[in-house]
Amino acid sequence: MDKNNAKNFVKEIADIDNDFPQWYTDVVRKTELVDYGPVKGTMVIRPYGYGIWENIQKELDTRFKDTGHVNAYFPLFIPYSYLLKEAEHVEGFAPEVALVTHVGDEELAEKLVVRPTSETIICDMYSKWIQSWRDLPILVNQWANVVRWEKTTRPFLRTTEFLWQEGHTAHATEKEAQDETIKMLNVYEEFCRNILAMPVLTGRKSEKEKFAGAVATYSIEAMMRDGKSLQAGTSHYLGENFAKAFDIKYLDKDGVLKYVHQTSWGVTTRLIGAIIMVHGDERGLALPPKVAPIQAVVLPIASFKPGVNKACEKLVKALKKAGIRVYLDDRDQSPGWKFNEWEMKGVPVRIECGPRDIEAGVVTVARRDQAGQKFTLPIDKIGKSIKELLNNIQSDMYTKAKDTLNSRIKEVYSTAELGVALDEQCFALAMWCGDEKCELEVKTKFSATTRNMPFDQKPIAKTCAICGGKAKYKIYFARAY
Amino acid sequence: MDKNNAKNFVKEIADIDNDFPQWYTDVVRKTELVDYGPVKGTMVIRPYGYGIWENIQKELDTRFKDTGHVNAYFPLFIPYSYLLKEAEHVEGFAPEVALVTHVGDEELAEKLVVRPTSETIICDMYSKWIQSWRDLPILVNQWANVVRWEKTTRPFLRTTEFLWQEGHTAHATEKEAQDETIKMLNVYEEFCRNILAMPVLTGRKSEKEKFAGAVATYSIEAMMRDGKSLQAGTSHYLGENFAKAFDIKYLDKDGVLKYVHQTSWGVTTRLIGAIIMVHGDERGLALPPKVAPIQAVVLPIASFKPGVNKACEKLVKALKKAGIRVYLDDRDQSPGWKFNEWEMKGVPVRIECGPRDIEAGVVTVARRDQAGQKFTLPIDKIGKSIKELLNNIQSDMYTKAKDTLNSRIKEVYSTAELGVALDEQCFALAMWCGDEKCELEVKTKFSATTRNMPFDQKPIAKTCAICGGKAKYKIYFARAY
Repeated sequence: MDKNNAKNFVKEIADIDNDFPQWYTDVVRKTELVDYGPVKGTMVIRPYGYGIWENIQKELDTRFKDTGHVNAYFPLFIPYSYLLKEAEHVEGFAPEVALVTHVGDEELAEKLVVRPTSETIICDMYSKWIQSWRDLPILVNQWANVVRWEKTTRPFLRTTEFLWQEGHTAHATEKEAQDETIKMLNVYEEFCRNILAMPVLTGRKSEKEKFAGAVATYSIEAMMRDGKSLQAGTSHYLGENFAKAFDIKYLDKDGVLKYVHQTSWGVTTRLIGAIIMVHGDERGLALPPKVAPIQAVVLPIASFKPGVNKACEKLVKALKKAGIRVYLDDRDQSPGWKFNEWEMKGVPVRIECGPRDIEAGVVTVARRDQAGQKFTLPIDKIGKSIKELLNNIQSDMYTKAKDTLNSRIKEVYSTAELGVALDEQCFALAMWCGDEKCELEVKTKFSATTRNMPFDQKPIAKTCAICGGKAKYKIYFARAY
Repeated sequence: MDKNNAKNFVKEIADIDNDFPQWYTDVVRKTELVDYGPVKGTMVIRPYGYGIWENIQKELDTRFKDTGHVNAYFPLFIPYSYLLKEAEHVEGFAPEVALVTHVGDEELAEKLVVRPTSETIICDMYSKWIQSWRDLPILVNQWANVVRWEKTTRPFLRTTEFLWQEGHTAHATEKEAQDETIKMLNVYEEFCRNILAMPVLTGRKSEKEKFAGAVATYSIEAMMRDGKSLQAGTSHYLGENFAKAFDIKYLDKDGVLKYVHQTSWGVTTRLIGAIIMVHGDERGLALPPKVAPIQAVVLPIASFKPGVNKACEKLVKALKKAGIRVYLDDRDQSPGWKFNEWEMKGVPVRIECGPRDIEAGVVTVARRDQAGQKFTLPIDKIGKSIKELLNNIQSDMYTKAKDTLNSRIKEVYSTAELGVALDEQCFALAMWCGDEKCELEVKTKFSATTRNMPFDQKPIAKTCAICGGKAKYKIYFARAY
């Protein structure tokens, strides 16, 4: 059996250590997470991939609502003139926006931007909705598709169209808006930790790396298996920049007209790419139970024998009743074929049930995150015990990812050390003078960028690791997706 | 108080019986369901409107999954050449599609269609995914935005961009696909009945009115307050039309390559317009409890008196615990102002709680669907009793709408009678020869169209009500949105 497995994997997916990019491409296609759309850089999110996104949405949406936000929907099409209103914003987005110029045979009077993000159209509406301090804060989120034309694309990681949520809030005071920015960053961090079993580093982006139009951008950065960083979410403090561009003012209690202070924050289908590259292994996907579309698969063994099918159906019923997302694989294929399939697809728990199990009053269980180990569990209270098992898997996957991350953050004190750390597939934590020149040097030499500045800014040296000038910030450097 | 109310309503919204279109526009804007987007015909769905859509989504999505469907996501952009593959389809959609021709300053080699519906791109994928009978059926649904450029637009009813779900299924046999078409039509009917409290007429559309590319289209038709019909959802049997255009074949068990048989079906944010126009009255919206974003509003009375705020908070807690979507309106406004606001917004139950209520161990309750009546309910077990009340309101609203519909369907036997029925704001049920000429005559004379042919085809006459020729079908005629 094991030999067979091994052979099949070789056939199915590239070696994860020798060719990680090819492994990624193989995994996303062969597990049917995704397919390529006909237009360059677009993706079709297939049911198995979309199931992950649905779980992400459900978990995040609950958190947004628990923190007082409501959902709304703003138009896909934005008049081109809107994009021009905020100077940095247009500079950042204009080259990559898709433009609608015609309807049928008729040319439009003004070309329309297919939203790359919705600050401009939402600010236009806020300028109408907000009159008085009574109208504040506005705490709105949108689930939507957006389009950005990218030169190099990869499923989930960078696609012409992607799905996301974008929160857009308006507040009376600077303090309130800044608090909101950090609050939502922390919501993302907690969500990644508890739901995606993925540790992330929170901190502030450098001026060079911040969002076009923001005063400050904060990010969560996750470490992929190859030591690269993936920016998994951002939260922006927009200050009064958009309020001034779109004239969003409110009459305060003191009778004075004031600009609102704004934030925006978002995560995307990119998170699915992160899950794949944090938890995947040589056998394919490994999905954290809390986002797995299928948490447990039940495989009948020797299903032609009397009682097996009935026992499996009873088992599935008990698991469903316990709130477990379970799939009964009664397809006409060999158990070995099915083992491979579900391992590759990353289902957290496989449950086998054959005549011998039934006789002994047990089922045979295998964890996706611990290869090769099998054990039995009594059929009594199977719902409860599998639920506990899924919780253990979830927390073990987090611990493993967290240990990996911790072991691969290196404090560095010179450009040379920085290069070594990156080549060892680590994040480099360094002191930095704050000058963009040093960022450019690292980019040129190592193809790496600054990721973010942790909130804990306790210095580890007095001088910039790159230029030797006076150190101003502690910051992570890494190669990145 | 009542006088005050009346005055406010006059100020806020147009008279429903004198100017129904203006009433509609006033209601959707002033209750903050929706706002106009900057691009002609687009709408912003504000949080209160989007909350209704979220409840619609949740209820429908559960039903789709219970009938074996899974969700996926296909790209927004479709190569123009795809649209050309199915002849009737391109004829139907080409004049109203928005076209992306440029990205930034660069012109694209092929212009892209912003999806008006996704048959073409989904069929392209299905042709790759489907090889064998083992791959069938494919039961996929998508929640997405679509764009159709319409000349005359109204919020929810007809907008340039709207939100919808589109189911796209592929089956081995004609019978299976036809069964699916009817099954999903029935899902829509049951959903409208039980969740929207809205009776609908199910049946088949005429050839003239069917979907561009379908073999047969079935619809659910709802009667609005003004006697007009609103097509609230459609389910299409596509036969092999798209399978042939996109070469979707499977190897059957008998070793023969065969075309698949397909269906598609959808409902849109239009449903929100239907809810408004079925249940609304002179005082504004009236939302069925099952889709109302707020099911009960709690108003503290004389909140400056000791104990009132505390009692209200306790009340809200109890209602939340019972699973009721409740809102505590502790804003600094008069009770009268709040009464109007929540009546206009259509919240099913208003609960007042003041010192006298607290002393008596009760709350004062008003139903939105029964004007002017107030009664008290013991504070003990308030969760349970409000839950029951909401169920009663839901079923009473359905009964009322059903009675209205029944009383406004007239059997007609001549063109003259048909005209009278329409002018009396009724649906006309008539025998019809099946000739498009008769449809055109009715359209010209009365601006009405055929709506659908009920499944009960028991004839009511032998001759066509319009031309006197041999009757072939029983069909509904109505003016329509």
